[in-house]
Amino acid sequence: MTFDKAPLRLRFSISLAYDVQPGGADFIFNIHAAQTAAQRVVHEQLNVNPFTQQQLFTDPATYSRYLRLQAQPGPLSIDYSADVDIAHLEATPGSIDQVSIASLPGSLLPYIYPSRYCESDRLLAFANAQFGHMTPGYYRAMAVRDWVASHVAFTSNSTSGTTSACDTLLEKRGVCRDFAHLMIALCRALNMPARFATGIDYGADPALGPQDFHAYVEVYLGGSWWLFDPSGTAIPMGFVRLGTGRDAADCAFAMIFGAASMSNMTISIAPVAGAGGTMREPVHTQDALSTDSGLPGLQAPQRAFAA
Amino acid sequence: MTFDKAPLRLRFSISLAYDVQPGGADFIFNIHAAQTAAQRVVHEQLNVNPFTQQQLFTDPATYSRYLRLQAQPGPLSIDYSADVDIAHLEATPGSIDQVSIASLPGSLLPYIYPSRYCESDRLLAFANAQFGHMTPGYYRAMAVRDWVASHVAFTSNSTSGTTSACDTLLEKRGVCRDFAHLMIALCRALNMPARFATGIDYGADPALGPQDFHAYVEVYLGGSWWLFDPSGTAIPMGFVRLGTGRDAADCAFAMIFGAASMSNMTISIAPVAGAGGTMREPVHTQDALSTDSGLPGLQAPQRAFAA
Amino acid sequence: MTFDKAPLRLRFSISLAYDVQPGGADFIFNIHAAQTAAQRVVHEQLNVNPFTQQQLFTDPATYSRYLRLQAQPGPLSIDYSADVDIAHLEATPGSIDQVSIASLPGSLLPYIYPSRYCESDRLLAFANAQFGHMTPGYYRAMAVRDWVASHVAFTSNSTSGTTSACDTLLEKRGVCRDFAHLMIALCRALNMPARFATGIDYGADPALGPQDFHAYVEVYLGGSWWLFDPSGTAIPMGFVRLGTGRDAADCAFAMIFGAASMSNMTISIAPVAGAGGTMREPVHTQDALSTDSGLPGLQAPQRAFAA
Amino acid sequence: MTFDKAPLRLRFSISLAYDVQPGGADFIFNIHAAQTAAQRVVHEQLNVNPFTQQQLFTDPATYSRYLRLQAQPGPLSIDYSADVDIAHLEATPGSIDQVSIASLPGSLLPYIYPSRYCESDRLLAFANAQFGHMTPGYYRAMAVRDWVASHVAFTSNSTSGTTSACDTLLEKRGVCRDFAHLMIALCRALNMPARFATGIDYGADPALGPQDFHAYVEVYLGGSWWLFDPSGTAIPMGFVRLGTGRDAADCAFAMIFGAASMSNMTISIAPVAGAGGTMREPVHTQDALSTDSGLPGLQAPQRAFAA
Repeated sequence: MTFDKAPLRLRFSISLAYDVQPGGADFIFNIHAAQTAAQRVVHEQLNVNPFTQQQLFTDPATYSRYLRLQAQPGPLSIDYSADVDIAHLEATPGSIDQVSIASLPGSLLPYIYPSRYCESDRLLAFANAQFGHMTPGYYRAMAVRDWVASHVAFTSNSTSGTTSACDTLLEKRGVCRDFAHLMIALCRALNMPARFATGIDYGADPALGPQDFHAYVEVYLGGSWWLFDPSGTAIPMGFVRLGTGRDAADCAFAMIFGAASMSNMTISIAPVAGAGGTMREPVHTQDALSTDSGLPGLQAPQRAFAA
Repeated sequence: MTFDKAPLRLRFSISLAYDVQPGGADFIFNIHAAQTAAQRVVHEQLNVNPFTQQQLFTDPATYSRYLRLQAQPGPLSIDYSADVDIAHLEATPGSIDQVSIASLPGSLLPYIYPSRYCESDRLLAFANAQFGHMTPGYYRAMAVRDWVASHVAFTSNSTSGTTSACDTLLEKRGVCRDFAHLMIALCRALNMPARFATGIDYGADPALGPQDFHAYVEVYLGGSWWLFDPSGTAIPMGFVRLGTGRDAADCAFAMIFGAASMSNMTISIAPVAGAGGTMREPVHTQDALSTDSGLPGLQAPQRAFAA
Repeated sequence: MTFDKAPLRLRFSISLAYDVQPGGADFIFNIHAAQTAAQRVVHEQLNVNPFTQQQLFTDPATYSRYLRLQAQPGPLSIDYSADVDIAHLEATPGSIDQVSIASLPGSLLPYIYPSRYCESDRLLAFANAQFGHMTPGYYRAMAVRDWVASHVAFTSNSTSGTTSACDTLLEKRGVCRDFAHLMIALCRALNMPARFATGIDYGADPALGPQDFHAYVEVYLGGSWWLFDPSGTAIPMGFVRLGTGRDAADCAFAMIFGAASMSNMTISIAPVAGAGGTMREPVHTQDALSTDSGLPGLQAPQRAFAA
Repeated sequence: MTFDKAPLRLRFSISLAYDVQPGGADFIFNIHAAQTAAQRVVHEQLNVNPFTQQQLFTDPATYSRYLRLQAQPGPLSIDYSADVDIAHLEATPGSIDQVSIASLPGSLLPYIYPSRYCESDRLLAFANAQFGHMTPGYYRAMAVRDWVASHVAFTSNSTSGTTSACDTLLEKRGVCRDFAHLMIALCRALNMPARFATGIDYGADPALGPQDFHAYVEVYLGGSWWLFDPSGTAIPMGFVRLGTGRDAADCAFAMIFGAASMSNMTISIAPVAGAGGTMREPVHTQDALSTDSGLPGLQAPQRAFAA
């Protein structure tokens, strides 16, 4: 594992606007950059207009940050921007083994169980028939990723918020969220802890439309959570992480309780010059990448940016 | 709220036997009594035969205890018994209000989101049409419980391990697990955090067969998690709590990774004389009952057993 | 039953345009007016451009007419128009009884069995709990219709081609097709033969968008199939019938085998002066209406237009 | 195609017993041998005890025979036995081509549409990815059959009456009914008319339990319906056909309307000496087999038994 590269600095912004209906609405946003073992927020700014009292909660297990506010009827705009430094844990795939059930940290058990959109309990036979003969470890997780990438067609607007991994396995189409759910379900069926991650993805294919939120996967292997991008639409090294959870149920960028409709969403991301004055571009790599060690008690910033 | 009663002491035992197939199997058991704000384990004993190295993990958020072990091929028996003292938090139902989304402790957000067997995201319209006009609070949660109890028929062997709340709402039959999932999904659709609890239930109707594990519901209202028993087959005051989670995916009494078949399950429970030498019987009550305050930092045993 | 009114004459037209992709495509259209016991096609015209060899098949049991053609790559337009006379069988609802299973014509058995989008086999308990106590007959079918109409919200674009009655019962929203499927499933669960009908609906609420195809329900009671309109968006007396079947799977207005996308759909309908020179407007009525006697061998035109 | 063999004569019997609850129950049985182009009922006998008025309906399209009766409370027994001669249409697989959508007999359209347990509308992408590159015709249908046979595990009691093709594709296990549904759904997704057939299967593997009803598949190719046995548990040449339909919804051996429980089911089948005094044993064959020409107007007995 190497930490000798200059950290990658990415600048991104998220602008959301809503029309809140009479009666008002409660919002839970998950749009803040997470502060993980390898992702440091250098600078961030949030503007809520009109100003509204806010609560920011950081989940101690996942570092996801949830912003809650109660909006009055009328227009509401949320503008968040940040610069983050990312120093991925990088490793040679062949060195990363699967962790046995007996050796998993207890806090990770929820990630081998099925969840709302990842019905791994129904996919045991399928996963074992397809991948059971392979050597456990990073390459098998990558084989799952590649299978999903090649068997599901990226099809905008083909799915809905209730679409699950089983639906995607049957209908073979979806968007990044659906690719992620299917890969997660298959990994869990193979006893690999897997979770859903959301972020802003640098390098997104412009043919898919304007810059959007992205959903991808983290699989726990060899003591860390490793990044996988089953929809293959961007450059994993360029993902800023917002949230992680068992699936999309846990990390919607906005949960709305009440009546409100979105009137605008604008997102941008680009690399900028970092601490040393040099700008680094995310690139595709054959190495395994992690932005979360998964080890309790790790003081990531110190370690990840040691150089 | 009153704590002036003698604690209730319950003695229970769980005997499980398995035939483990060649290749062996990993087990995760959730059969230990939880130690919560109001449930104290006075004594417990675990025998695993043949002796096998064990790991016991306590989830810091739910107090669920997970026992993991790797079993060799051949017979395996697990015998657990415990005496627990339970001093419920009791309250007048009318005094317990619903907590607004904005005021919920951040750690409870997962319990308003949908989960594997509780697809609250699909039931928003149904829940609001049926219960949306009622005053939020304990009585509304009880109305949900009563609706489930009266619209679902307790039917042994009518459902399977993949049956979900939506299935139960459609087919109107199931066992305690299914009643619990449906109540949870409806509560979440009404913005009430709700979770799945497992236990041993004193007072189970013998017409339903031998003493078994039980599944019930906890709803977070007014700062605490309150017990509800939608299948109505036992006496809530007599529930010893084993696990809680988002749904049955999180607290199976046994998760088996590998091939093994259960050859025996025997469970018993009865009240015994407690500290003061008196024996108290669980009884049905109109009061709201809680065995978990839900408040971080609360030193429950001191408080709950103050008298 | 009365046949003393002047027949109602409706003129309608359907214009469809497609872009057929390289490789060509087979089409099955169900856009011809059915010739039933009470619906007579006075005049009809079909233009297919470019001209393509066509096959027209009339299902002997349902009178649905299916047009098949193989289209070359490039634009394809289909223009159909017709004048139809409709002389409904009208009856007093209270006089129409449910037919016992033992007395049903054998050819109707498929309509009490579940079908792709009408999973009556899952809704037995629900249907019986909700409607089982009512006196069998037309009024009970109407109670099912009213229940569906009041419990499901008409919501454009909320559902897809794979949405079924169970989905609609859970999510409580949909379009006319979904209302129809749910009503059919509930009727079958109560042992009433029920089928899916498609047509052009005079009097459609313009707030729902441009004139479209419509889906509604026929229930077999007292020896005839009776019309029900669970979405309640139009005037049943003004429905021209195109197809009937077990559900939408049997009577899509267009089934496409190959790659083609629709570039236009324009539909119109209006009453015109009939044989006697008078124009009759469809109106809402409390009477039961049928356009298919369901009795084999009936020479409907002679009977229906006897006056 | 050859008809020069001695017909195969099979003798089978079905004994069913029920306890009918207070209130009585209507039954629809589909236990009579069908009389098809190649299956002739030489002798049959039906005993209903206590005697009850019966109605026998033969579906003119499928030749399925449905027996209806209204049973009084108390015990009910049904004993049916028959000798049937079967002279299969046999053909060389390579000579049997797929029929284009445009050329299909109109009456077969329902068999390319999805049905209750065969959701072909959801499996288009899967079927085309897996089988779309193969040459259409009998061998492709056989490839679908072989895929289902090798990817689904025969597992008694693993499924229920509401299990569908999608469930089976996901969970990869089931009984003969489930294998049949999945094969049918995949064939329809490839534009091959396919239907569900029930029968008594000579040669059933005794390891699967006592002689039972069987479910298999017929696919329409080259002008006839051809037999396929995706569960592979018996000898197709030894299937006596009872019913055919779109799926199991159409040909349950018993549909019960009311409350009754089955107290016994005993089935037997064996070859017996036929007209010429010789007994022929069903054997496995590489030829394609049909017991229904699918051609309207064919006088099968004359043709099939010409020798």
